[in-house]
Amino acid sequence: MDVDQYMADLGRAARAASRGVAASSTVTRNRALLATRDALDGARATLAEANAEDLARGAANGLAAPLMDRLELTPARIDAMLEGLRQVAELPDPVGAITGMNTMPSGIQVGRMRVPLGVIGIIYESRPNVTVEAASLCLKAGNATILRGGSEALASNCAIASCIAEGLRAAGLPEAAVQVVNTPDRAAVGRLITMPDYVDVIVPRGGKGLIERISAESRVPVIKHLDGVCHVYIDDGADAEMAIAIALNAKTQRYGTCNTMETLLVAESEAQALLPRLAQAYAGAGVELRGCERTRAILPQATVATEQDWREEYLAPILAVRVVSGLEAAIEHINTYSSLHTDSIVTRDHGRAMRFLREVDSSSVMVNASTRFADGFEYGLGAEIGISTDKLHARGPVGLEGLTSLKYVVFGEGQVRT
Amino acid sequence: MDVDQYMADLGRAARAASRGVAASSTVTRNRALLATRDALDGARATLAEANAEDLARGAANGLAAPLMDRLELTPARIDAMLEGLRQVAELPDPVGAITGMNTMPSGIQVGRMRVPLGVIGIIYESRPNVTVEAASLCLKAGNATILRGGSEALASNCAIASCIAEGLRAAGLPEAAVQVVNTPDRAAVGRLITMPDYVDVIVPRGGKGLIERISAESRVPVIKHLDGVCHVYIDDGADAEMAIAIALNAKTQRYGTCNTMETLLVAESEAQALLPRLAQAYAGAGVELRGCERTRAILPQATVATEQDWREEYLAPILAVRVVSGLEAAIEHINTYSSLHTDSIVTRDHGRAMRFLREVDSSSVMVNASTRFADGFEYGLGAEIGISTDKLHARGPVGLEGLTSLKYVVFGEGQVRT
Repeated sequence: MDVDQYMADLGRAARAASRGVAASSTVTRNRALLATRDALDGARATLAEANAEDLARGAANGLAAPLMDRLELTPARIDAMLEGLRQVAELPDPVGAITGMNTMPSGIQVGRMRVPLGVIGIIYESRPNVTVEAASLCLKAGNATILRGGSEALASNCAIASCIAEGLRAAGLPEAAVQVVNTPDRAAVGRLITMPDYVDVIVPRGGKGLIERISAESRVPVIKHLDGVCHVYIDDGADAEMAIAIALNAKTQRYGTCNTMETLLVAESEAQALLPRLAQAYAGAGVELRGCERTRAILPQATVATEQDWREEYLAPILAVRVVSGLEAAIEHINTYSSLHTDSIVTRDHGRAMRFLREVDSSSVMVNASTRFADGFEYGLGAEIGISTDKLHARGPVGLEGLTSLKYVVFGEGQVRT
Repeated sequence: MDVDQYMADLGRAARAASRGVAASSTVTRNRALLATRDALDGARATLAEANAEDLARGAANGLAAPLMDRLELTPARIDAMLEGLRQVAELPDPVGAITGMNTMPSGIQVGRMRVPLGVIGIIYESRPNVTVEAASLCLKAGNATILRGGSEALASNCAIASCIAEGLRAAGLPEAAVQVVNTPDRAAVGRLITMPDYVDVIVPRGGKGLIERISAESRVPVIKHLDGVCHVYIDDGADAEMAIAIALNAKTQRYGTCNTMETLLVAESEAQALLPRLAQAYAGAGVELRGCERTRAILPQATVATEQDWREEYLAPILAVRVVSGLEAAIEHINTYSSLHTDSIVTRDHGRAMRFLREVDSSSVMVNASTRFADGFEYGLGAEIGISTDKLHARGPVGLEGLTSLKYVVFGEGQVRT
């Protein structure tokens, strides 16, 4: 197969299909989502067969256990995909809303209309359910999609793609509105991210290595999520019970998520009273502590935190702890070491809360809440395609709105410029 | 000079300064803008001297006449810079606004706060007044700036930079909030666009060649404006007088601007009646016509338009004309050949107007108005840093809001995730 030619064909087809999708009605796109749901439900046997093929190949290739687990399409996971499609169909359509329509001195009226981005390329790893999740969100927002999943999930992804095609057909939408790259050739990724004529945005989902490589090589804008080095800062005078509850939840509610706290900052005025109680709570949860010198003066059981610890996304029951002089030092630490993901202050002081909110340059900044809330569902977006740690376009959880942009619309009555 | 080291130093200083600017009050930033205005007003002699140096070097190097013209800082251009600073100071501050604050089922309140982007790199060509325009908009929006002007304007740009530094000092802001790259070495540009740790966005202003090169090589997101291949479509049943007025204005009001119409599309039902009248009007303005076959059947004086003409940004008194079967063919032509800049329909029909608005995928889509209105001032943005033909982040004229983004802010009362 000539991969360059194949990808260019997918791109051209996607660009053409994107116009049809963008011009389609909300009802039509929802019909496609629900018809895809029915098609998947009716194809459980075919899906199981394709998935078994992927699993057998994975086992033969010695795929690691966590990857084998992610690859599996259990009946429960298929149920979740069906439920996801129903939910996306029920979300309000972001496309077409016109806002801010004002009359200018020339007499023209100027406002902005929310429109699809066009063609979105999704690059992801082993989980085949991402195929449905990502395609359904992009479609709902009026975009065409080219999906490049992991080669280990190729049979499953192609089986899912057939069901999506059936759904699109049932609604009268072009089948090329959702295309799965049907080759394990790695050159396909390189081509997908360098076709600015056919692809408007790339959304990579996977490990940091994958995302860094794609960002470095892409000729198309990338909506990306690198790491989540999240902080909780316990301010001078914070409510002790609230501080302990938030610090414990932010670290221990789940270890592997990007909005999990990785470094705890404690105002020196609270350290003596709070650190021993926190250490006890963390010990109960099996969390290893790594502390600065002042932390270790109070908690000798903590090991030494190095410079590298302040930058580390552990994704594990390990926590870096630093005692800081107060708000200013906490903000300075966060703006130096944070990955711009999510940071929270626990405080009673309104002025300091607002200063933290303004000055911490992260995609989510919180007052008196666990960092674990940074998520599209908890923020009321209904669903998320990912969490962006970029500054342009979309910051934080990216839902349907992040898959659209605003164009200017002008209504005149024959005005010309003088 | 070690350019790598020099640029890294500028970057580090800009990053540090960006925090101070982001945290500063509206009053402080406005004070810096007005103090810069006073400093420039008081430095007219120094500016003239520096500019004379650039002009002499330009003349010695045989700089082309239009470049020499753009390089010159006449007293009127300095007046315009001063007036621009006053106007930017008077614009409302976009930073800090919190919108969409809603309470979620968990009890947390989630909204979004408008925040500066951070550090903006501006790359431009010979006009030294861009130094003040770009720096003032970025500063007003709470950003630090690194400016890389044309080497032919280096002395003028450095003289202007001293006045900006004086303005920043007077307001107590860090001087590194606005830095001009003080070396003609071309390697400086290559470095500026590959320092993602220090620079958040690049805004190139100049010819298409410059912008394409920067977009291809940048490791930092680029807000860019490529070409403006703008269309007016005269619909079936359009008001003839309005159609002629708009088609004439869109082409002839100015030839060198990106929002000038380059291709006129006419519904076949109107061609016989309108084209001769239009041809007469264009002949009066000295505009050369290039037409499709059906246009030439009516206007034999038009030369043959080739495929290349549909893609051409003439920036000159030349117009491509095509007769199309109707709305659908017009949208198809525009979505195929347009540069996604600005396109307008002249129509009486509401349904077709709305369809054109929805389906034409350009940054500005107009009904019954001249494409020449696509501009930050006419849209009420107060000022513009440029016009974006990208789809992510900002489309169309980019004002202060386009130099900011939205972060999520969360107010809790101790909520943790369960």
